[in-house]
Amino acid sequence: MRVGLLTGGGDVPGLNAAIRAVVKHGEGHYGHSIIGFRNGWKGVVEGHSVPLTRELIRNVLPVGGTLLGTARFHPHADDGGLDAVLATLEAERIEALICIGGDGTLHAASKVAESGVRIVAIPKTIDNDVWGTDQSIGFDTAVTIATEAIDRIHTTAESHNRVMIVEVMGRHAGWIAATSGIAGGAELVLAPEQPFDIDKIERFLKHRHRAHASFSIVVVAEGAVPAEGTSMHYETQMGKFGEIVAGAIGERLKAEIEQRTGFDTRVTVLGHIQRGGTPTPADRILGSRFGVAAIDAITRGESGVMTALRGESVVTVPLSEIAGKVKYVPEDLLGVARALA
Amino acid sequence: MRVGLLTGGGDVPGLNAAIRAVVKHGEGHYGHSIIGFRNGWKGVVEGHSVPLTRELIRNVLPVGGTLLGTARFHPHADDGGLDAVLATLEAERIEALICIGGDGTLHAASKVAESGVRIVAIPKTIDNDVWGTDQSIGFDTAVTIATEAIDRIHTTAESHNRVMIVEVMGRHAGWIAATSGIAGGAELVLAPEQPFDIDKIERFLKHRHRAHASFSIVVVAEGAVPAEGTSMHYETQMGKFGEIVAGAIGERLKAEIEQRTGFDTRVTVLGHIQRGGTPTPADRILGSRFGVAAIDAITRGESGVMTALRGESVVTVPLSEIAGKVKYVPEDLLGVARALA
Amino acid sequence: MRVGLLTGGGDVPGLNAAIRAVVKHGEGHYGHSIIGFRNGWKGVVEGHSVPLTRELIRNVLPVGGTLLGTARFHPHADDGGLDAVLATLEAERIEALICIGGDGTLHAASKVAESGVRIVAIPKTIDNDVWGTDQSIGFDTAVTIATEAIDRIHTTAESHNRVMIVEVMGRHAGWIAATSGIAGGAELVLAPEQPFDIDKIERFLKHRHRAHASFSIVVVAEGAVPAEGTSMHYETQMGKFGEIVAGAIGERLKAEIEQRTGFDTRVTVLGHIQRGGTPTPADRILGSRFGVAAIDAITRGESGVMTALRGESVVTVPLSEIAGKVKYVPEDLLGVARALA
Amino acid sequence: MRVGLLTGGGDVPGLNAAIRAVVKHGEGHYGHSIIGFRNGWKGVVEGHSVPLTRELIRNVLPVGGTLLGTARFHPHADDGGLDAVLATLEAERIEALICIGGDGTLHAASKVAESGVRIVAIPKTIDNDVWGTDQSIGFDTAVTIATEAIDRIHTTAESHNRVMIVEVMGRHAGWIAATSGIAGGAELVLAPEQPFDIDKIERFLKHRHRAHASFSIVVVAEGAVPAEGTSMHYETQMGKFGEIVAGAIGERLKAEIEQRTGFDTRVTVLGHIQRGGTPTPADRILGSRFGVAAIDAITRGESGVMTALRGESVVTVPLSEIAGKVKYVPEDLLGVARALA
Repeated sequence: MRVGLLTGGGDVPGLNAAIRAVVKHGEGHYGHSIIGFRNGWKGVVEGHSVPLTRELIRNVLPVGGTLLGTARFHPHADDGGLDAVLATLEAERIEALICIGGDGTLHAASKVAESGVRIVAIPKTIDNDVWGTDQSIGFDTAVTIATEAIDRIHTTAESHNRVMIVEVMGRHAGWIAATSGIAGGAELVLAPEQPFDIDKIERFLKHRHRAHASFSIVVVAEGAVPAEGTSMHYETQMGKFGEIVAGAIGERLKAEIEQRTGFDTRVTVLGHIQRGGTPTPADRILGSRFGVAAIDAITRGESGVMTALRGESVVTVPLSEIAGKVKYVPEDLLGVARALA
Repeated sequence: MRVGLLTGGGDVPGLNAAIRAVVKHGEGHYGHSIIGFRNGWKGVVEGHSVPLTRELIRNVLPVGGTLLGTARFHPHADDGGLDAVLATLEAERIEALICIGGDGTLHAASKVAESGVRIVAIPKTIDNDVWGTDQSIGFDTAVTIATEAIDRIHTTAESHNRVMIVEVMGRHAGWIAATSGIAGGAELVLAPEQPFDIDKIERFLKHRHRAHASFSIVVVAEGAVPAEGTSMHYETQMGKFGEIVAGAIGERLKAEIEQRTGFDTRVTVLGHIQRGGTPTPADRILGSRFGVAAIDAITRGESGVMTALRGESVVTVPLSEIAGKVKYVPEDLLGVARALA
Repeated sequence: MRVGLLTGGGDVPGLNAAIRAVVKHGEGHYGHSIIGFRNGWKGVVEGHSVPLTRELIRNVLPVGGTLLGTARFHPHADDGGLDAVLATLEAERIEALICIGGDGTLHAASKVAESGVRIVAIPKTIDNDVWGTDQSIGFDTAVTIATEAIDRIHTTAESHNRVMIVEVMGRHAGWIAATSGIAGGAELVLAPEQPFDIDKIERFLKHRHRAHASFSIVVVAEGAVPAEGTSMHYETQMGKFGEIVAGAIGERLKAEIEQRTGFDTRVTVLGHIQRGGTPTPADRILGSRFGVAAIDAITRGESGVMTALRGESVVTVPLSEIAGKVKYVPEDLLGVARALA
Repeated sequence: MRVGLLTGGGDVPGLNAAIRAVVKHGEGHYGHSIIGFRNGWKGVVEGHSVPLTRELIRNVLPVGGTLLGTARFHPHADDGGLDAVLATLEAERIEALICIGGDGTLHAASKVAESGVRIVAIPKTIDNDVWGTDQSIGFDTAVTIATEAIDRIHTTAESHNRVMIVEVMGRHAGWIAATSGIAGGAELVLAPEQPFDIDKIERFLKHRHRAHASFSIVVVAEGAVPAEGTSMHYETQMGKFGEIVAGAIGERLKAEIEQRTGFDTRVTVLGHIQRGGTPTPADRILGSRFGVAAIDAITRGESGVMTALRGESVVTVPLSEIAGKVKYVPEDLLGVARALA
């Protein structure tokens, strides 16, 4: 069988583990030929393919990014993109397609599957907000990097007398903020799930610094917003690719806290370092398991499904079940962050 | 409420996160007094206690080990240990006890609970073989350390022409071996769950090195054994504390492989570095969640239960349900290790 | 002998190693009493002291920051600060003083020494620009953190098609920029030592991306400035403590590059994470050696000197020799950065 | 100019940085052609060469090992090796040769240079015992790995009550032992430079554990030996390649200490993990600087010299000056290790 493979959307650590698993298991166990497309759906539309040999996947396990390249590009029916995809797949005699990506890529996969193409998807996202799976590729590494940064800021915050704001990724859901906040021992975690009350934050910080503490660490997700009706006005700022502008909420909070409390306040925006570098073992293992499971599923004839982690098992779930849903941080996890502040 | 707290068995990274969560949530939310016992059950028997204040738990999140100390010591009914435990708890007016530990500690907790003491346990073990929970405290850090070691050995193995054996922990179950083997890209993973055939290993290595490869990495759990009836004889060697002697199977394999293949073979025994150092975010989060859940459960009046991770949720399970069971690595995970060899 | 000890200026990793060495060697070998002052010179002026016992320095080697606290505060003759310092030293019967700090702290130390106080200084600075020593405490850790960040950004830059700007510390000298730029394989390094020509940068990036590359990494020191007479106008922005405002040059460059080349350009400002967290072995060793050398020097009767690394040896140099000098990055090191672009 | 390049002896992290620098600077600045030889001198003897293109050196900075491969093989005049070397160099029209290696490789380089070949050498060794340079490639990474291991063992040692022995590399000189011992806060450092007295060690440990401590960490170099005339007999054990057998002195010490003190004693042999994995920034920078300096020197016409770090400068020194010398750990550094025990 000739199986196509692409990675779409933002890059995350662990993609190469999934690519490697698809190639090793697909070729080694089933004798499939694996054809990679460059730069996500863009490469499919443009017919930019590369045969994935064992040589190409040597030593890629500890390497971040994706050896196939990626792009924030999605084919649509009305701009001829979908037709171009089908044309390329036919020209390349691709019998099945494995798509690794986040929301956008999965949505496109779903559309292509409806056109009769056999498709299995693998979820990846720093934000961990893909519905239907306990974890997506890239999340564990991002949390590890964010926690290391908070650890570092902790020692310097203690040596001086400051409020330190750390802005992490998380547009719709605050997974990185909540988990790195717990792991790093943050005093406050601000997540999109629970719009914050700046008056409460002011009271909390004043009380804490008056009482005993000489510093506070506030972890804020880039998509966090103030609650309606509170005294702070802020609208999420969006870039040209529809992404949230990094640093905006962090800087806004800093200004507000400094003005209200008079405390020396600093903001660190982690930005791109969260999505790069050597993947953690958890992300390599998840990528490897998803890659093996995707090949198994596609060979069994499944289509329109996504690999998913459920407890200790890897299963497949219909793409139709997860469409349009966001996996928010559960209340009990946000509660742990609050309990340990 | 006066709540006792102890950590028993071998130390692992993440224990301090659990201790901190018990103190912060117990004191801060419920107003409990938390009394720590030194060196596990030994401290309870000897009445060696210390009030756990907020000062004591400052800055412990990134610190490995346990600030309470630990010991491989378990109270028994027939040596008066159980009576001594009950006497101390009464003398200290302890109304409930939280025990953090592995098999041995959990077993003792179960016995003490049967005597009418309100007890909630928290599972920790490098080996990840406690039944009833997806993960135990310490496992993720151990896998991370083992994977880093395999990564390092990878680069040096490639530069020369060798078989490199890496012996990792895992007495009854091969969790570290299987996961670090997948994450590190090992050629062979030998786990206690599947006794190995040395003849097959010989053929595999000869074939691989003849075909194309210039090196091979073999990850072996300390509790791995040859299959019965095969041509290699080996009995697991036990130390005075009933623990498996580190290095024994690694050295035995090295001798066997060198003699059979003639390949230069080296063995690295990771040993104690697997259980020390800064806990990963995953272990800090798990410890924090388990600590909060244990206090919640004990305050609700639960007893004879253990906190457990199930998918994305933390629940409690009866200690009676997990007694005497070992959580082995599931066949599908061992299969991934084989598929990617 | 009663020996005072303080840490002044911004905190850096490795300070605790120096404190520990002063206490262990001073007490253990010579029988001195070591008296710490809180928050740098501020604690001396305010008489805020703490006896440094062996208990206080346990386990501090791997911990960033300074257990004594620090402050950006310097005593002056004309505001009565110098008199207050002398009064405290007399009241506390301090016979000699060890000052760990950067430019400002060393300058104050020099002034206090002129008043007849026996003083030995230890140099620390992220920026590595203290004259007279090959290396100052904190620099090696900062370079390690900056290099890790560039490594991470490398993998994500390659997966997309971008110019990535990484802004690192370095007000007057570009040590972190030059070394992390070499270690991380940056395409361009912009240091204060060599004002840059934005037209040349534009040509370089256009040529590189036209020719073959899909990304470029630019490492810029916060104190970098455009050459006079070039077409980019920018003035270094200063905060209220006289420090350079983080992010200013990075954002300015991003705007300029995007406008001139049209390439998608992102900026990451490392900021405070460069000065926190576990010190590298090199910083722990340097701190330990400097601490031992300072106690030896002060016991021998030296005063008005600073410990310094010269090749493989630790020596002392007169503070008068280093006053007012900045150690710039030598041309040959900047040349290596250029050669490997 | 056609310049040959080889890496010989044991692999260390940082070799690829040197290779990359030789290629980038040699080709980019001077227009030389760089011809790599596989597996050190073996590849020269066998005529196994590969043109080093820019494509081959992409992304190698963070990768350990050597992309050229290496071998413990040295050409001799009396076995025809030297003639074979000269023949290959002539056949390949190599005008100059850059040799990266340790003692053995440098010695061979010296012999080949005497035959009229233009040669510049670059020193690398985990052991840091090459005379004439402050530091050799690979040492900083090895110290970092050893210190991390000691940090990990520290937390677990404290939780129990043990003597923990950590055996590190260092045949003739104890650089890794002394520096990682200082950085990790070891109680005892045993280096080849100062044969140890087991009776003193026994008294020290008994005194320390009686007085207050619950654990001790002993760092021992693989080449450490007991002093003559003391009550412990031990001869260094050598493997077939003339290398010291890892673990021998560690196990011997463990037995001796356990028998004499009765303390539970464990030994961890770091072995191969010390020479693998991502190089530290210091090793990447040193490799890069040495690579640039070697090309500059060879283009200038120098021969029979080695690049060397002296303080902040890179210079060249005649190979004849360093021949037969071992750079031992200076007494003052060993003194710091003792002072901070």
